[in-house]
Amino acid sequence: MSTPSRPAVKVTPISGFPEYLPSERIVEQRFLDVIRETFELHGFSSIETRSIEPIERLSAQGEDADKEIYAVSRLAGGSDEDARWGLHFDMTVPFARYVLENAGKLAFPFRRYQIQKAWRGERPQEGRYREFTQADIDVVDVGQLSAHFEAEMPLVIADVFSKFPVGEFVIQVNDRKIPNGFYQGIGITDVIGTLRIVDKLDKIGPDKVKALLVESGTTPEQADQCLALAAIRSTDLGFVDQVRALGVEHPLLDEGLESLANVIRTGMANAPGTLVADLRIARGLDYYTGTVYETQFIGHEDWGSFCSGGRYDALASDGRTTYPGVGISIGVTRILGLLIGRGLVTASRSTPAAVLVALTDDEARHEAVEIATALRRRGIACEVAPSAAKFGKQIRYAERRGIPFVWFPAAGEHGEVKDIRSGEQVPADPATWTPPAEDLHPQVTRTDTP
Amino acid sequence: MSTPSRPAVKVTPISGFPEYLPSERIVEQRFLDVIRETFELHGFSSIETRSIEPIERLSAQGEDADKEIYAVSRLAGGSDEDARWGLHFDMTVPFARYVLENAGKLAFPFRRYQIQKAWRGERPQEGRYREFTQADIDVVDVGQLSAHFEAEMPLVIADVFSKFPVGEFVIQVNDRKIPNGFYQGIGITDVIGTLRIVDKLDKIGPDKVKALLVESGTTPEQADQCLALAAIRSTDLGFVDQVRALGVEHPLLDEGLESLANVIRTGMANAPGTLVADLRIARGLDYYTGTVYETQFIGHEDWGSFCSGGRYDALASDGRTTYPGVGISIGVTRILGLLIGRGLVTASRSTPAAVLVALTDDEARHEAVEIATALRRRGIACEVAPSAAKFGKQIRYAERRGIPFVWFPAAGEHGEVKDIRSGEQVPADPATWTPPAEDLHPQVTRTDTP
Repeated sequence: MSTPSRPAVKVTPISGFPEYLPSERIVEQRFLDVIRETFELHGFSSIETRSIEPIERLSAQGEDADKEIYAVSRLAGGSDEDARWGLHFDMTVPFARYVLENAGKLAFPFRRYQIQKAWRGERPQEGRYREFTQADIDVVDVGQLSAHFEAEMPLVIADVFSKFPVGEFVIQVNDRKIPNGFYQGIGITDVIGTLRIVDKLDKIGPDKVKALLVESGTTPEQADQCLALAAIRSTDLGFVDQVRALGVEHPLLDEGLESLANVIRTGMANAPGTLVADLRIARGLDYYTGTVYETQFIGHEDWGSFCSGGRYDALASDGRTTYPGVGISIGVTRILGLLIGRGLVTASRSTPAAVLVALTDDEARHEAVEIATALRRRGIACEVAPSAAKFGKQIRYAERRGIPFVWFPAAGEHGEVKDIRSGEQVPADPATWTPPAEDLHPQVTRTDTP
Repeated sequence: MSTPSRPAVKVTPISGFPEYLPSERIVEQRFLDVIRETFELHGFSSIETRSIEPIERLSAQGEDADKEIYAVSRLAGGSDEDARWGLHFDMTVPFARYVLENAGKLAFPFRRYQIQKAWRGERPQEGRYREFTQADIDVVDVGQLSAHFEAEMPLVIADVFSKFPVGEFVIQVNDRKIPNGFYQGIGITDVIGTLRIVDKLDKIGPDKVKALLVESGTTPEQADQCLALAAIRSTDLGFVDQVRALGVEHPLLDEGLESLANVIRTGMANAPGTLVADLRIARGLDYYTGTVYETQFIGHEDWGSFCSGGRYDALASDGRTTYPGVGISIGVTRILGLLIGRGLVTASRSTPAAVLVALTDDEARHEAVEIATALRRRGIACEVAPSAAKFGKQIRYAERRGIPFVWFPAAGEHGEVKDIRSGEQVPADPATWTPPAEDLHPQVTRTDTP
């Protein structure tokens, strides 16, 4: 008889495709639950899109994206051979397609969140994955999108991150109109090219950026002005005066400063201390046209941004109607890969069970199941011991999994429940006994203070 | 400036890859939440496995599986060209590999659940999908697996299904040892071949099954005995006497009857009315060796089984150690495709928001955000109106999404909240006001009585 086991095939991890042990998965679930719950509190609707898109839709993103696409085809070929599909590498491309496909059935402005896996065939390294989970929020509207949504996005993210057991974080905000207007104001015509060079500041430093800028055709004075702009950073509205002090005038610059001031002002009022105007932030993607966001953990700035996004004036277009949007994406797997990988966050147990109902003898399983059923009805996760081993062995079964309580049934009575950490044992009734709130579900906690 | 929109590429659904609108997704989320919560109450730990496996691991399942595998490869080729991967088509193959890979780090018996997407390149039809979500529970142990786990599985499933808004269901149970022993007891040697023919009973009826059996080498008397066995069905232990009355003796048959009696007895005690011993149930897969399960909605028997599984003596093996297991898989997308597709279950709204905070004028956004923040802190999902349109228009914004309450802020006061269904409007404080429990989250309800 054949079996699903195949000892002949090597059992090995595949680089870039992370898998967690049960206790690590509990950490991941906690983060995903916080994200979902917070997105929903802010009135975002969930959608999921299929994992595949036509390759020509994916690869319109540009050559870099092309190299990273995983193509999908039926092993046996057949009637689908002409359809060329690839796994999506983000949520933005499928969301744009979903909006166009369902425009007539959606209510705009459409607030949606999407928590799904995506795939990129890039070279794996710490914090980079080939299969990973992203959690996106976007607001998309028809024709016009109100500016206040750009101020709302970081408030949602601040709410999410404040609930994570990860310490302090900062959301860095800029507006693409500021460098765009500023560069034009000092006579630079290749705005995108300049932005791309300035974006390397963190990696190569100001001297090399200046050299590259001059190489690309700017004057040394223009390059200095670009660097001066990129050095501006303030947690309040001070950035406006600092930019003005550089003496550059351009209508787009004025627009950008007003827009960014609005975002920072809203942040100061509703999420004080979490937003910073950082005029170095550019985001690589061409399609951002307004506010752009990045997010860092304080003390872990070298990890880079875990959560990024921005405003795009044309998320999608069917040729007649354009759908502008603004969104942010949390790199869940990236956050967890580092937090779990470095042991900075752990779960108190490897199972949802708060209670192990012990077995006095194998004939008494029915009574043990009744106790378990009564506990479950009241929302207390539990399991019945697999066999009527000696109580010491049953307690070790619970210990090994981090289950905090063992219930000992007694003939004709409810029995007693033991906290196996303190050793305290008390008579208890499964219809009324409740574990301490912190033991009901696994605890997910920081293990150090970064 | 390039954008993520690509009007040149056709925007069309892909057959077999379902996507839901926001209100339909709320139905899906409710089903997934019930499944997860119930699995966790029963002490199953969550794991997720990567979406891909080496093709040789997937295709060891047999030729039929082979045809349905989606191969995955980097579009650009390169260093991964020699690695041949496919998307998993179920949770069993990856779970078996995960158990072997992590055996040293897992606590056995290992109780795990897994809710993930899977992919099969089969011809799409109603209730069949190419991308679909399955929700599996399995218990796997080392060397030996206690029989009581076979009785536990359907209790978990009964608990899940009793919480779905879908009416009555029945879990049909058999034990492969019963037909195996019975067939051997009447002198049939090709047990698997016979089982496969009897499995067609629902599709082609007893006369054609008999003809096929005789064609395959059984005598007409043997064929009649096989049909008599397959006709036995009881909601209590009556099936034992009915089998005995057929006068067949075999040690494996005795084992099977004892095992199935134990499962039915446990079901009668803990989930009365939901289990039925149905000796026609076979399950196509070769690797089941004990109890097998199928599940039907009463009144929708023609939809087939939505939830199936069984015991396998060798889920996985590394050549030295064997891991027996028992599990059931809920076909989530299959259930929802039919329930949502036929409009049998709907959600009361298309957003998690219970409240829309109206805007009196655009300058008052800050006060509206403060009300929303106070509500969110108390777990009440809400959003602030996108613009200070006329109140009638803001109410229609809520109506269109099914948001039941609109909050009207008032300068210097908390304002009033209106139930837009009844029109009732009362003064309210965002620090204390709470919507009725049934309005806090979207309601997911049956829309008919099947």
